[in-house]
Amino acid sequence: MYLSARHHEVAVLDNFSKRNWELELNAQPLIPVSPLLNRVRAWREVTGRHIGIFVGDLCEYNRVREVLRDFQPDAIVHYGEQPSAPFSMMDQRRCVMTQVNNIAGTLNILWAMREYAPAAHLVKLGTMGEYGTPNLDIEEGFIEIEYKGRKDVLPYPKQAGSFYHLSKVHDSHNITFACKVWKLRSTDLHQGVVYGIATDETELDPRLATSFHYDEIFGTALNRFCVQAIAGIALTVYGKGGQTRGFLNIRDTLRCVELSILNPPGAGEYRAFNQFTQMFNVLELAETVQREARELGIEVAISHLSNPRVEAEEHYYNPRHQKLLDLGLQPHLLSDVLVDSMLTALRDHAGRIRREVILPQVRWDGASLPAAKTLAPVC
Amino acid sequence: MYLSARHHEVAVLDNFSKRNWELELNAQPLIPVSPLLNRVRAWREVTGRHIGIFVGDLCEYNRVREVLRDFQPDAIVHYGEQPSAPFSMMDQRRCVMTQVNNIAGTLNILWAMREYAPAAHLVKLGTMGEYGTPNLDIEEGFIEIEYKGRKDVLPYPKQAGSFYHLSKVHDSHNITFACKVWKLRSTDLHQGVVYGIATDETELDPRLATSFHYDEIFGTALNRFCVQAIAGIALTVYGKGGQTRGFLNIRDTLRCVELSILNPPGAGEYRAFNQFTQMFNVLELAETVQREARELGIEVAISHLSNPRVEAEEHYYNPRHQKLLDLGLQPHLLSDVLVDSMLTALRDHAGRIRREVILPQVRWDGASLPAAKTLAPVC
Repeated sequence: MYLSARHHEVAVLDNFSKRNWELELNAQPLIPVSPLLNRVRAWREVTGRHIGIFVGDLCEYNRVREVLRDFQPDAIVHYGEQPSAPFSMMDQRRCVMTQVNNIAGTLNILWAMREYAPAAHLVKLGTMGEYGTPNLDIEEGFIEIEYKGRKDVLPYPKQAGSFYHLSKVHDSHNITFACKVWKLRSTDLHQGVVYGIATDETELDPRLATSFHYDEIFGTALNRFCVQAIAGIALTVYGKGGQTRGFLNIRDTLRCVELSILNPPGAGEYRAFNQFTQMFNVLELAETVQREARELGIEVAISHLSNPRVEAEEHYYNPRHQKLLDLGLQPHLLSDVLVDSMLTALRDHAGRIRREVILPQVRWDGASLPAAKTLAPVC
Repeated sequence: MYLSARHHEVAVLDNFSKRNWELELNAQPLIPVSPLLNRVRAWREVTGRHIGIFVGDLCEYNRVREVLRDFQPDAIVHYGEQPSAPFSMMDQRRCVMTQVNNIAGTLNILWAMREYAPAAHLVKLGTMGEYGTPNLDIEEGFIEIEYKGRKDVLPYPKQAGSFYHLSKVHDSHNITFACKVWKLRSTDLHQGVVYGIATDETELDPRLATSFHYDEIFGTALNRFCVQAIAGIALTVYGKGGQTRGFLNIRDTLRCVELSILNPPGAGEYRAFNQFTQMFNVLELAETVQREARELGIEVAISHLSNPRVEAEEHYYNPRHQKLLDLGLQPHLLSDVLVDSMLTALRDHAGRIRREVILPQVRWDGASLPAAKTLAPVC
């Protein structure tokens, strides 16, 4: 919608797999998301602009090449992956599915680009989680290393924190290589944690609402805290809450994609942009939500849960995020006013909050998995 | 056989997929390799020692967990991957199959270890090709980086040179993570190029011969040059031949595995050993073979082919390989005598050399692939 509104010709390839995963876990978005065909129809009614639809699975190579052959894209915005870290840690089946789905889908796009769209620009959704939390400044994709009197610019060493995050690391390596050997071009958007409910486009019509998750599997920290405040559930900080991450407003996400598209890399170039605008630690976010909730007359506690993840709860964190600013990104920063408006908006949907999907059940160390020594079905 | 001869209790899990790939490409080993059941029977006849056999695919999770549950290994030596770089570059199907097969198989082992053998030691066959050829000294798995006044020990940045080599990079990242979150233990053997025909065990009986490839897909540089000399085909150096790599004698490969097993890492530890004993560039190897062939009365030319790979043909290369030496490895070094004995041994098999499988057909840049803009079957 963002790109279509700005007069790009857009088509979507989707196989609706995210909706299947939501069904499997009974973890639907808070605000109902219309089926794709209805959203495209609503978009046409509201704006007069057409968005094409292809139905298909990135893991079916012949479908991917058909779509690239027929649509001949200038840019491919690749959001087609299993996007949840806890989902990938639930059990063997979901772990392997996540990596196979994400890696094979991306490889298929690269092979199809080589055949049918070698000049197209692949804009790939990566994640800041690829880097982990090293005790060094994090650069954008590459780092110049001096070692024993020699120097080279090398891929930034990756220490991802889940099988999902690892799938993105694998993608980054595969894409880098394909750009090198086939002279493809790609921008890898190492995105931070997205927060927010609405964009200018979704606000045009209720049928254009986008996905807002607050559950443990697909939800992210700030969004989930806002829902917890509205539902009167203590804000669940995992461990000490000193985990610092990069965040960005949903309004900035598509602007970053557009800036990448408008400023493509050269043939053979793989580049990475760190796509976030501010850093917060989890406890700070919980305290911000607690404070703004109080302004609205809602008292909510903060609860430090035993951390279900295996991650550093206090660590150095100083990732660079300059390249998108250099291209012209003007960030929508997090403010008390914004949190206030999120809480106010969420109040309208309070009746649909399902409390049972919020608390973390999936543990990284495997303690949540079925007892060993049985051959019972995995789930 | 090496481990069984040294009184380890050994069982094999195999699905014979390598033989299928050989059939698919008509690229059989030079010396016939008996079916697994015959080799195990021959081994028992010759040594009185039993080796167990499980038939199954690492991509079938329930089979992997059954085997780990029933055999309860102390160590798992994981050789079960598609092992060829050119194979992975042939087309989309073989590329995706390589990565899915290798990654899913390794993930399944990790999940099954977590369930049934959490104290076992995973000895994983990786490759020196994971590192590529950076302009820095290559360390064993990890590197201490000083950057802008801070310091950390991080995974060595990887720049693999094929989709096959990338699959091993992905494995390394996945295994590192599994060791961290599940307290598993693993040794990742970043192996160099193996040369040689025979070991003490294969020499006990012709039915115990191991796989010796000289074709472009599964063959490796020195072995292939020896076969070319015997067949009177000019030695095919790719490009300038300044590509330097680590090499090791086949007699050392299993000793490295045993040294790893006898000196396991602690719970939660992932370690990498660079497993090679000497470095050569490709042109040096060709010249050595040419010289030794001449001693045997064989004149063979050296031919510089247009490089089918995308790789640096002149580069810095100084990888460390100390850890296995520290554990007691005593290398069998390459010598003129050894090349002479390889040539002499190969003469007995000259009649089976198939000249048509030697020259490289697979190009990394895709030029060997079918023309684009068609939807013909990929192969």
